[in-house]
Amino acid sequence: MKTEDIKALISRMTLEEKAGMCSGADFWRTKAVERLGIPSVMVSDGPHGLRKQSDKADHLGVNDSIEAVCFPAGCGTAASFNRDLITMMGETLGNECQAEGVSVILGPATNIKRSPLCGRNFEYYSEDPYLATEIAGALIKGVQSKNVGTSIKHYLANNQETRRMSSSSEVDERTLREIYLAAFEGAIKKEKPWTVMCSYNRINGVYVGENKEYLTKILREEWGFDGYVVSDWGAVSDRVKNLEAGLDLEMPSSHGMNDKLIVEAVKNGTLSEEVVDQACERILNIIYRFVENRDPNAVFDLDKDHEIARKIAEETIVLLKNDGILPLNEEDEIAFIGKYAKKPRYQGGGSSHINSHKVTSVWDMVSHKKNITFAQGFNDDTDEIDETLIKEAIEAAKKAKVAVIFAGLPDAFESEGFDRSHMRMPNCQNELIRRVAEAQPNTVVVLHNGSPVEMPWVNDVKGIVEAYLGGQAVGGACTDILFGKVNPSAKLPESFPIKLEDNPSYLFYIGEKDKVEYREGIFVGYRYYDKKKMEVLFPFGHGLSYTTFAYSNIQVDKSSITDQDTVTVSVDVTNTGNREGKEVVQLYVRDVESTVIRPEKELKGFDKVELRPGETKKVCFKLDKRAFAYWNTEIHDWHVETGEFEILIGGSSKDLPCSKTISVQSTVKLPVTYTMNTTIGDIMEDEYAKQYIGELMKGSMLTLGDTEQDSEEEGAVSKEMTMAMIKYSPIRGILSFGTGEISIEELHSIIDKLNKR
Amino acid sequence: MKTEDIKALISRMTLEEKAGMCSGADFWRTKAVERLGIPSVMVSDGPHGLRKQSDKADHLGVNDSIEAVCFPAGCGTAASFNRDLITMMGETLGNECQAEGVSVILGPATNIKRSPLCGRNFEYYSEDPYLATEIAGALIKGVQSKNVGTSIKHYLANNQETRRMSSSSEVDERTLREIYLAAFEGAIKKEKPWTVMCSYNRINGVYVGENKEYLTKILREEWGFDGYVVSDWGAVSDRVKNLEAGLDLEMPSSHGMNDKLIVEAVKNGTLSEEVVDQACERILNIIYRFVENRDPNAVFDLDKDHEIARKIAEETIVLLKNDGILPLNEEDEIAFIGKYAKKPRYQGGGSSHINSHKVTSVWDMVSHKKNITFAQGFNDDTDEIDETLIKEAIEAAKKAKVAVIFAGLPDAFESEGFDRSHMRMPNCQNELIRRVAEAQPNTVVVLHNGSPVEMPWVNDVKGIVEAYLGGQAVGGACTDILFGKVNPSAKLPESFPIKLEDNPSYLFYIGEKDKVEYREGIFVGYRYYDKKKMEVLFPFGHGLSYTTFAYSNIQVDKSSITDQDTVTVSVDVTNTGNREGKEVVQLYVRDVESTVIRPEKELKGFDKVELRPGETKKVCFKLDKRAFAYWNTEIHDWHVETGEFEILIGGSSKDLPCSKTISVQSTVKLPVTYTMNTTIGDIMEDEYAKQYIGELMKGSMLTLGDTEQDSEEEGAVSKEMTMAMIKYSPIRGILSFGTGEISIEELHSIIDKLNKR
Repeated sequence: MKTEDIKALISRMTLEEKAGMCSGADFWRTKAVERLGIPSVMVSDGPHGLRKQSDKADHLGVNDSIEAVCFPAGCGTAASFNRDLITMMGETLGNECQAEGVSVILGPATNIKRSPLCGRNFEYYSEDPYLATEIAGALIKGVQSKNVGTSIKHYLANNQETRRMSSSSEVDERTLREIYLAAFEGAIKKEKPWTVMCSYNRINGVYVGENKEYLTKILREEWGFDGYVVSDWGAVSDRVKNLEAGLDLEMPSSHGMNDKLIVEAVKNGTLSEEVVDQACERILNIIYRFVENRDPNAVFDLDKDHEIARKIAEETIVLLKNDGILPLNEEDEIAFIGKYAKKPRYQGGGSSHINSHKVTSVWDMVSHKKNITFAQGFNDDTDEIDETLIKEAIEAAKKAKVAVIFAGLPDAFESEGFDRSHMRMPNCQNELIRRVAEAQPNTVVVLHNGSPVEMPWVNDVKGIVEAYLGGQAVGGACTDILFGKVNPSAKLPESFPIKLEDNPSYLFYIGEKDKVEYREGIFVGYRYYDKKKMEVLFPFGHGLSYTTFAYSNIQVDKSSITDQDTVTVSVDVTNTGNREGKEVVQLYVRDVESTVIRPEKELKGFDKVELRPGETKKVCFKLDKRAFAYWNTEIHDWHVETGEFEILIGGSSKDLPCSKTISVQSTVKLPVTYTMNTTIGDIMEDEYAKQYIGELMKGSMLTLGDTEQDSEEEGAVSKEMTMAMIKYSPIRGILSFGTGEISIEELHSIIDKLNKR
Repeated sequence: MKTEDIKALISRMTLEEKAGMCSGADFWRTKAVERLGIPSVMVSDGPHGLRKQSDKADHLGVNDSIEAVCFPAGCGTAASFNRDLITMMGETLGNECQAEGVSVILGPATNIKRSPLCGRNFEYYSEDPYLATEIAGALIKGVQSKNVGTSIKHYLANNQETRRMSSSSEVDERTLREIYLAAFEGAIKKEKPWTVMCSYNRINGVYVGENKEYLTKILREEWGFDGYVVSDWGAVSDRVKNLEAGLDLEMPSSHGMNDKLIVEAVKNGTLSEEVVDQACERILNIIYRFVENRDPNAVFDLDKDHEIARKIAEETIVLLKNDGILPLNEEDEIAFIGKYAKKPRYQGGGSSHINSHKVTSVWDMVSHKKNITFAQGFNDDTDEIDETLIKEAIEAAKKAKVAVIFAGLPDAFESEGFDRSHMRMPNCQNELIRRVAEAQPNTVVVLHNGSPVEMPWVNDVKGIVEAYLGGQAVGGACTDILFGKVNPSAKLPESFPIKLEDNPSYLFYIGEKDKVEYREGIFVGYRYYDKKKMEVLFPFGHGLSYTTFAYSNIQVDKSSITDQDTVTVSVDVTNTGNREGKEVVQLYVRDVESTVIRPEKELKGFDKVELRPGETKKVCFKLDKRAFAYWNTEIHDWHVETGEFEILIGGSSKDLPCSKTISVQSTVKLPVTYTMNTTIGDIMEDEYAKQYIGELMKGSMLTLGDTEQDSEEEGAVSKEMTMAMIKYSPIRGILSFGTGEISIEELHSIIDKLNKR
């Protein structure tokens, strides 16, 4: 429907109807206005499958949903580093929604993984905002190509489950911009999601839902978002304030209570009716975008989509360690150990939980083979060690040539709603791995978990495969990777710290009552481990292949640019092994020197290429201002400090063999205001101001005299100290450490002159 | 002079004379008012010796001073953990001041060692505020017992030299209270220094000198300080604002400029004359306290005080590592290597620099012995490796049975005025140690430095002695420790991190322009390394002896107290070795469980005991509320959270063999205000409020129904998630997730009722 038609429609609605349009009819549907022909549409949970609830939804909206296909969770999809693949997954989901009449699928969930403990990390993408927003964008692109909406969530700075409906994320402006907003920014600007979901939490004391800065100024005015903002279910804190801030649609229904408040507020003049009209316009626009573009031919083919889920899973499984043990030999005697071999953990709990129509395990794939045995090894509903199970597993391992242990985190460990309290796997599993590895040197561990775990046995096993939560088809994908039918190509979208305490948010994580301080600031994930020169278990971007890749011939099309230009960087990647494989080429930028505190390097580009043995491909990246910029809190804008930048390319954040330095010149002059407290050192760096102050300095005694030569060798004051004292002295020091010849008035007038130029 | 006499004197002064009293006559003297008989008195730099400048002081106040005795610097004196010893040092300094007519010696310097890089760390005491304030207090006690004033400095949060006159330390309230203010608090409350020196820097944007909160409210009203506040030299940022805030005396002279501003401000009514009178009263009070209590018999006996300096040095040298190599055998062939053997580095640069009347080196002590040879090893004015010197050293080392390398940081590395840029020793020294140790397995390193250094060779040598900056008599003390005439008894007053990046302030240290964020908060030093479970090179409180000590029989006189009570803790310490020695007994307190973020443990008591072989002494500590409290920012007061506390005792922060748990009951009820956003979980913890809300909950559907039993085994929602959702739901959730039976009005009225009780 055209904008003018929607406006006309709204003009025919009563105030009560318009207020009603701003909240759900029930748990999943918008309100219809029958007399005007406005239909009710449905939204459904996502994002790695369709969680469409039956009409009789329970009060928390968490019960049975229709049978659907569970794709790999966010943790895994990000590990693919494959935009096209995730777009394909989006297309599949979009088609499912068309078939089921779902107008908006609630996702992607692109919150930054600040701590490994966040209960919902398995749904999220990365510790890096660029990767997160690119993957989110790819999913949005796919879903929306089918004329179904997405709801990028949970906007904003909602990085833990503990007290999620009341806690305030205390984050500084620069960190919000560079990390937490950035995770949304790229996807929203490029892929224009139909809706954005407003999170439960506060930021710096104010509910996101009450903050016009985030919901309107940044989201709409800066980024050009033109859909509706929907509350996370129950996130409406104050309906009138929320509406004014830009939260258009409340979900679920408030039983008419909040509709009434809106009507009252308009009637008593505390809320402009235009605000209500605008929200209706946004909501109706999306409703009609859906209903007018229905695909009558869409069919939800469960089995077909299961195969797509398997295809995707193949690229979400990260080979973390391989001391020559993988791929497995089909003919060898192999012991599959661990409950997850038969019953894989493949998704997390909460609103993203899919009623999977079928689940395939690795055992399903190999049970027909006589050379493969199974031992359960552990119970996953307990921490307790079961000696019988362990001994059975050791026996099986001993009899085989190789033991493969399928372990990870039990369901109860990872769920929406609460956070983990530690980063360990259950004792029974760690003990199993330790003892099997002791008995069988050829041991491989396959992990099923949505977030990093500590691996006390990392050096005891020969191979580690991170299967993440791979969706219902994980068994097939995992089997193919283990036996080498598929060459692993995923990379870690997050750092695996050695222990929980290593994590940058550790000291202040979970916070005190409703206050959670993001004191690590921009130093999230690898930005922290890099800068602190800390060892990690596995670094960001790490992931092995059954072939090898070489990087060479990095080139830039310009060695010097301004912040208004772009530079193209290319690199040659060669498959130097003897089998076909895909490589994730990663590009990081490092500011060589900066007056602001910056990470060692930041991911600014990635691409995935497929290469036959011996084949070389040139991979190109285009970098613009943003690749070199930080968020400047004086001008409240992205800013590049003039200087050298190093461009680093390779296959992991810790393995970047190619680099090239270019210089970038800023075209923006930062504002400067001098005061009596400005240091002499700062003024002397300003060519114009220098003349004036230099002149004054001659009159004062704050000059580098021959103090240090006069005094004995071991005098109190070195030349360095004298230099530093002058440099760090405020201009007013010219008065107090001077001879008294310059007056305060004279100094003030010079400062005024400098500021007025 | 009595208060009324001083008041009478002030009443006879003109406004100009009073304004003049508020700033120095020159670099070191207050102004006399001859017509009223008010004398001019002198102040001099300290604090580890008297830096009294000749009458013709230079313009920066940093040139030649009279010959005096250089005692160990702050870094070392804190390592003694010996209050009586430092009080004795204070008495000696006080006597020197009496002899020289110095009214106030500028010190102690008790700033917290936030980063190993701070150029002035060598003057400071500790990373722990309790140790810092106890040592500062001990020095003040000694000096002031001689009727000479001290000036505890640099108040406040002045923890780096970079941009020290303009930078703002951005510190939160709790961190200021628990760490940075606490370093001053104990000493000021207990020992009442005559003066306090206001630092150069800003805190949270405001110059300390302009902040009434710190200079008046906390310092005088809370802590009972009754002397005058003097500006650090040149720290006056705005004379009138400073005076109003409580900065009484400006130093050095402002050439009358600021006196004029004070007069003008009083005349035009912007400054109350009472403020000027008050400052004069404080300054005159201290002037007369000095002049009326002169000791006519005081004599500055340089040689006698040198011996005292040696005595003190003996307890400031920390034996860090000893693989059975120390003490040295007098008869063995020994090679003394390194320039510092002949020319020890024993003090730092800047205002604390003493014109030492003599300096003894270890070489001075042993040069008569034929079995000891010397090789220079390195030049300390360069990083460059001198192969000739190194080869010479290796030769000497090879010929001997033991090599002792005297290394550390050159003068140019540690000075007031600028910070270090790294934590390394010069390359030439590290290379020397590495290669000598390679050639001679029996190698000992003696370090002369005022702040931690990285030790890449830590595992290559058998012994490491941290001599800090030991003052002019360091040679004698060091020799006696090396040969075992003195048993080392010092302990590290700071953690030695493995590398600079490990330090908690590292990410944000030095800051951006004039903003330095203290993001690590209370996690300074061991509070950080403990909590992050990080390995350090040597932990806080560590220090070896030539004998051994055992701890036993920890006892508490009460196992349960309120926060109004005290508890006495005792422990038996036994010398289990075969020679006399002193042990620093350390007591730490750990809050077993807390809703606020707290360190693993904090130092709350220490004592030093001397024990003959086989002797046992009982050491007692009395703990009060403060030992268990944290600073609560809601009530702006110290607060103890009711619960269990563990008391840990031992000889190092990492070796605490005795522990006892007691419970402490708070007598303070924290204020609670409920709102629509208060979580149900929080309310349910309040017995009174629980009844009301519990009733409402029954009406709503936010109850633990049998959701989870209804759904299939692998349902979306676990019992844990349901529980968490209810617990973290705000009360308003009862409306939106309810049946609509409860109205907003009803809920508001219940909340009002709860808040009014």
